[in-house]
Amino acid sequence: MQRGFATSEYRARLKAAQLAMARHDFAALLLTSEPDVRYFTGFQTRFWESPSRPWFLVVPQEGELIAVIPSIGEPLMRRTWVEDIRTWSAPDPFDDGISLLTEALRNVAGAEKIGVPSGLGTHLRMPLADFGRLQSAGLTFSDDAGLMGQLRAVKTEAEIEKIAQTCTIAGRAFDRMGEVARQGAKLDAVFRGFQRLLLEEGADWVPYVAGGAGPHGYSDVISPAAPDPLRMGDVLMLDTGAVWDGYFCDFDRNFAIGVPARQTGAAWDKLLEAAQAGLEAAQPGAEASDVWRVMAAIVGSGEEAGRLGHGLGMQLTEGLSISPRDHTVLEEGMVITLEPGIGTADGMMLVHEENIVIREGGAQILSPWANGPMPVI
Amino acid sequence: MQRGFATSEYRARLKAAQLAMARHDFAALLLTSEPDVRYFTGFQTRFWESPSRPWFLVVPQEGELIAVIPSIGEPLMRRTWVEDIRTWSAPDPFDDGISLLTEALRNVAGAEKIGVPSGLGTHLRMPLADFGRLQSAGLTFSDDAGLMGQLRAVKTEAEIEKIAQTCTIAGRAFDRMGEVARQGAKLDAVFRGFQRLLLEEGADWVPYVAGGAGPHGYSDVISPAAPDPLRMGDVLMLDTGAVWDGYFCDFDRNFAIGVPARQTGAAWDKLLEAAQAGLEAAQPGAEASDVWRVMAAIVGSGEEAGRLGHGLGMQLTEGLSISPRDHTVLEEGMVITLEPGIGTADGMMLVHEENIVIREGGAQILSPWANGPMPVI
Repeated sequence: MQRGFATSEYRARLKAAQLAMARHDFAALLLTSEPDVRYFTGFQTRFWESPSRPWFLVVPQEGELIAVIPSIGEPLMRRTWVEDIRTWSAPDPFDDGISLLTEALRNVAGAEKIGVPSGLGTHLRMPLADFGRLQSAGLTFSDDAGLMGQLRAVKTEAEIEKIAQTCTIAGRAFDRMGEVARQGAKLDAVFRGFQRLLLEEGADWVPYVAGGAGPHGYSDVISPAAPDPLRMGDVLMLDTGAVWDGYFCDFDRNFAIGVPARQTGAAWDKLLEAAQAGLEAAQPGAEASDVWRVMAAIVGSGEEAGRLGHGLGMQLTEGLSISPRDHTVLEEGMVITLEPGIGTADGMMLVHEENIVIREGGAQILSPWANGPMPVI
Repeated sequence: MQRGFATSEYRARLKAAQLAMARHDFAALLLTSEPDVRYFTGFQTRFWESPSRPWFLVVPQEGELIAVIPSIGEPLMRRTWVEDIRTWSAPDPFDDGISLLTEALRNVAGAEKIGVPSGLGTHLRMPLADFGRLQSAGLTFSDDAGLMGQLRAVKTEAEIEKIAQTCTIAGRAFDRMGEVARQGAKLDAVFRGFQRLLLEEGADWVPYVAGGAGPHGYSDVISPAAPDPLRMGDVLMLDTGAVWDGYFCDFDRNFAIGVPARQTGAAWDKLLEAAQAGLEAAQPGAEASDVWRVMAAIVGSGEEAGRLGHGLGMQLTEGLSISPRDHTVLEEGMVITLEPGIGTADGMMLVHEENIVIREGGAQILSPWANGPMPVI
């Protein structure tokens, strides 16, 4: 499959952003996060792992993108479609790109409003003191009113293909779980082995792996793995956010080590039923909360129990939550996870997760949809 | 090797922070980033990969830590030494922990100064609009004056052991490079294979891999790998930030595919010479800029060419830069990288990197120190 996107796709993204900016009266957007910068530029590097250097993208309401970046990134940015690239030798303890950025913003925005993503799920990826310097320079910033989140939430076919590709890769890795997980295998070794399988099956990298194991499931889904051996009768869950060409999958699989307990099987059936109901409810025009409601009714999840899915794409989780308080209206092209969880015995739980894309006439499945009894290892 | 730290170590970190806070007149610190929260609590999860939820740690000038976190993290936080844990069901689009956090901060700080890491290399990992809400609630925030960075820069013996362990793991993976890299192997497959080797040798995960290949080196060190085959005469470089128990290594290795060109060999010798000079200059009391100067003189690096190393620990890069503008004084227990680079032909370069810890009487080597001719594959 082809990597990257056609320049026409980046140009369409920019144009859509500029139309929305005009509606919101933003003279410019200031973007600082990896996915926001990549969304418009295609600038893709794992170097964001280093927190030492900020990266700035200025999106003017009219005209072309301006990248204000550390010089170490110039060769890579030159390979994108961005032409206006301004660099400095970072990190500079006295002026880490701020005078350069101030000038760029002043030229395109003057004293007019500059949108900065500021809402749920966003972070300003630059030193707070440097943002204060921009404000003191007479620039006017305001919340981007969710504009970036809305643009990124609806995926193009090219984006959906990449997420589907990542799901396929992870599906193949899950199919090989028997190679790394068995009675007596230690959970931390299983985590390592699973990451290795994901790479062998074609993932570029594996930013996220979580999981758990126990006779009635697991107590949480975010803890690192301990070196505890898998026991006969355990349920093993592994959840991954792997990446191919900058796009995530995010789904899990549950496995029974030997024969699952009877109540575990019943809980499993409920999870499959909830995922199926979520799939059917995830229609264009429905709210995220509607999808939550049908799944929550089946698994018996209360309002305070947390979300049962979320948006997915350039980040492991992004955008909407499948929760009672999220009234985002689903649109064709949105990619989401369905992630019902259910309590079992001893305060334990099971969680099941699938990835889908919203389509007219019924959501399309991206992850290899689980059916039937829990797979046995 | 034992995972985690003794509670006494966390208590000592808290005490040192509280003494520094008293000197700076901070009634509290507000911490939002993964390493800052983990530094005091030991809370370790890859769930930070999800940007949807903020995590807050309040460090009062007197008394115990207060964790204000999404309820999904409560079971894991309960396994740390933190006792005061306050949770909400996140993400909440109307109040994502802000009223809970406001109350916690108001109780310990009132209208007094609350330190927030705001300088070079830091980010506020929470929505900017929510930070505005805290400010509007009458709380007073100011830059932490580099306090967190200074605390984290000097490592304990237990921390150094973990970094050394990660270096050992990566060293073993590099020793096996011949299994994945050879003439004709595609660079993207080599990247995947190298990550697999790191996992097999015991890395918990591999947040960072970069590299490049070409007859005279590479044009930059941050680009993702293309599916181009390695050719006879290429220099292959792979650079990794792998993690064991939450601590990074960060070093690279260069390999000659077949016999390296003569001028490549000469550049390689200069890099080894520069690393050796950096090692000898990295004494307690020297400035970061002093270490830069001796290395830059050997590789012919100008003031604008970027840094030749940096701090290392809970992040791939943290704290000081080995650069002409960084006058940080080296102290015993600081872990740094020495990363000289040198230009070759056609605008290409070679970069070499080692990890060391500053000690009285001479820095101690943590990565398997490279010597002699460039290894040939």
